[in-house]
Amino acid sequence: MHDAYRGLNILVTGGLGFIGSNLAIRLVELGAQVLIVDSLIPDYGGNVFNVSDVQDRLVINVSDIRDQESLPSLIADQDFVFSLAGQVSHLDSMTQPMVDLEINCQSQLALLEACRHHNPTAKIVFASTRQLYGRPQYLPVDEKHPLVPVDVNGINKLASEMYYSLYHQVYGMKTVSLRLTNTYGPRMDLRNDRKGFAGVFLRQALRGETIRLFGTGQQRRDFNYVDDVVEALLIAGQTTELAGDVFNLGNETHHSLTEFVTTLQQFTEFQYECVPFPPDRERIDIGDYYGSYQKFHAATGWRPQVSLTDGLEQSVAFFNEHREHYVASP
Amino acid sequence: MHDAYRGLNILVTGGLGFIGSNLAIRLVELGAQVLIVDSLIPDYGGNVFNVSDVQDRLVINVSDIRDQESLPSLIADQDFVFSLAGQVSHLDSMTQPMVDLEINCQSQLALLEACRHHNPTAKIVFASTRQLYGRPQYLPVDEKHPLVPVDVNGINKLASEMYYSLYHQVYGMKTVSLRLTNTYGPRMDLRNDRKGFAGVFLRQALRGETIRLFGTGQQRRDFNYVDDVVEALLIAGQTTELAGDVFNLGNETHHSLTEFVTTLQQFTEFQYECVPFPPDRERIDIGDYYGSYQKFHAATGWRPQVSLTDGLEQSVAFFNEHREHYVASP
Repeated sequence: MHDAYRGLNILVTGGLGFIGSNLAIRLVELGAQVLIVDSLIPDYGGNVFNVSDVQDRLVINVSDIRDQESLPSLIADQDFVFSLAGQVSHLDSMTQPMVDLEINCQSQLALLEACRHHNPTAKIVFASTRQLYGRPQYLPVDEKHPLVPVDVNGINKLASEMYYSLYHQVYGMKTVSLRLTNTYGPRMDLRNDRKGFAGVFLRQALRGETIRLFGTGQQRRDFNYVDDVVEALLIAGQTTELAGDVFNLGNETHHSLTEFVTTLQQFTEFQYECVPFPPDRERIDIGDYYGSYQKFHAATGWRPQVSLTDGLEQSVAFFNEHREHYVASP
Repeated sequence: MHDAYRGLNILVTGGLGFIGSNLAIRLVELGAQVLIVDSLIPDYGGNVFNVSDVQDRLVINVSDIRDQESLPSLIADQDFVFSLAGQVSHLDSMTQPMVDLEINCQSQLALLEACRHHNPTAKIVFASTRQLYGRPQYLPVDEKHPLVPVDVNGINKLASEMYYSLYHQVYGMKTVSLRLTNTYGPRMDLRNDRKGFAGVFLRQALRGETIRLFGTGQQRRDFNYVDDVVEALLIAGQTTELAGDVFNLGNETHHSLTEFVTTLQQFTEFQYECVPFPPDRERIDIGDYYGSYQKFHAATGWRPQVSLTDGLEQSVAFFNEHREHYVASP
């Protein structure tokens, strides 16, 4: 189905990170000429091991997307740009808001300007986030839901998404944004707590530590296995009619945090307990969240293929095989 | 009514510009200690003559709000910050988007960070814009209207407004944003076409040139005389219960562009004609726009006091008295 990518030049920013590396590997397998741009900033998620299986079949360019002088030459000959580089920690965006703005706002506008001036026909897929919605006012959250981000990261990602749409409307550039939800799977960065609870839980489970769920543990989420997200990105890049638009990903099946953890217990041994919310966490908790991906499904036919059980089984198998690269000893 | 400002330290960014200078003058008259910060970037609207009547009763600090190193000491002792400095040209935001981002996005976040670290109790009023709404989906536009900005300027102003609200929600800082609509009056920058049609029409009228209205000239707008906007800013700064919120300004009376021009003809002699829309203008025209200011009225009692006729009469009188500073010869 993705024969269209064969032989094409494809830039993946953040291509050494979790989702970027899974995408880059898939593109290599599809016969694309992949250029990865990644800053390898410690703790941001980039990991050279992520692409070790294909490292002689793609090019890694270590540079920061804030380096606006390098962007034009990196972008000039690309047929596709997958814009996945980002600062993803909500907490870091509050302690270092100017850094978040540089990466998630300024660099995205610079990338669009570089494309406008040097490669206006490139197809561009932007990895946006459900974080734009803030606390759900109704469920499932669709694309018409009010956008009320609850941290600097959400505001900056919203601005960027709007730049991508605007550059289609004004300049006819082929941009599309996918709002990702809780993605998990192989090559996830488990080394710190910056990337949300799924990675934290996976690390603790793989180390045999006791997982602590805040509150009742009944908060529901829609999880996407990374292969399903990669498939969505590939489809989005190829479907020209989506240009200028934004789409939720999501899952028709919603799972509570307790279900996530008990499913994980099928594949690795650990304990969990429910503890009261720490006050600072309760204040920023968004309760249940799950989105509707019907708009994207209607436009492209995409739907998630991998169940939570299968996805967690494959994740645990991957991380157990490569423990030293992902799960440091406690 | 505004006795509360007497003797207080008040920073007005963009205080040599149109609205900023009118506000600064009023604050001086109310007995406040006013510090103006203005970059005096050519064409951005700053004009030292604007405050010439009170120049020995306030302090002018020429610096750019992008100068993040200076902000902490400028902000440290202020009781109020009126954040009015901005890049206001929609066209410039498309030709120089990175500059617009620096001024309208990055500098606003830096100002909030400076306040958070060095003066967290200051009251902060942010001048936002109706531009956030984009093309009206219904009229009058209230604060629940979807936010779909149609240029980079609108996106950056939206992000900034969200920073101001967020810093209230997270840190309890006393921020409030007013979404200004078509403001006109004395000290408006008439020297170039960057600030919207009201200034262009005023300059052409005062020079006796023929004004060209695009299309039918029946597009309706809600005009606010600058004294009414200054009053709204002063009220917003004093009303602690507004913190974290955003409010439209506006006018219950809406006028077509033709009405604006024919009212202006009562006070100065010129001709006008309707001409077909140039294609590039038609594409970005937003049609009728008028907003509802009922939320702000309900919260504060504010309503516009100056009719279009009185406002234009006073504007023409001011600009005729000071022609050399505002209306260069054709």
